[in-house]
Amino acid sequence: MFYSLHFAIFVNMDIKQKFGLKIKELRKLKGLSQEKLANLAEIDRTYLPTIEKGERNVSIEVVEKLANALEVKIRDLFDE
Amino acid sequence: MFYSLHFAIFVNMDIKQKFGLKIKELRKLKGLSQEKLANLAEIDRTYLPTIEKGERNVSIEVVEKLANALEVKIRDLFDE
Repeated sequence: MFYSLHFAIFVNMDIKQKFGLKIKELRKLKGLSQEKLANLAEIDRTYLPTIEKGERNVSIEVVEKLANALEVKIRDLFDE
Repeated sequence: MFYSLHFAIFVNMDIKQKFGLKIKELRKLKGLSQEKLANLAEIDRTYLPTIEKGERNVSIEVVEKLANALEVKIRDLFDE
């Protein structure tokens, strides 16, 4: 039941929310704080929390910075 | 020789140029004009050529619109 609920929630999310969730997931997997990731990605410390909350329509340059900081391929930040 | 040259050029491109090249490649593969793709993706007709030329730091919402219009997954617009 939990898995289908989780999936249902994910499916109804928009791209900003899905992307934010993915960044948060990978950041935690890497054991990084928001501050540490923002630092590594060279983005503003106050910007990252709003990205993770799905509030930001980020640009591909920010996407690339986050992928590099998380040491993943850009395509791996988008999975459907 | 041509392949390595092509690869060398691609490697030196920034994310905007790589993304633009990918959109152009997929659009042509689908036999779509720029006008037709812009229409399908619901983006301005004059915006698409600048994206394909690598001049635009597009947002993830535009990325999603283009992926849907080209009938590919978002992750397939980014391949390294």
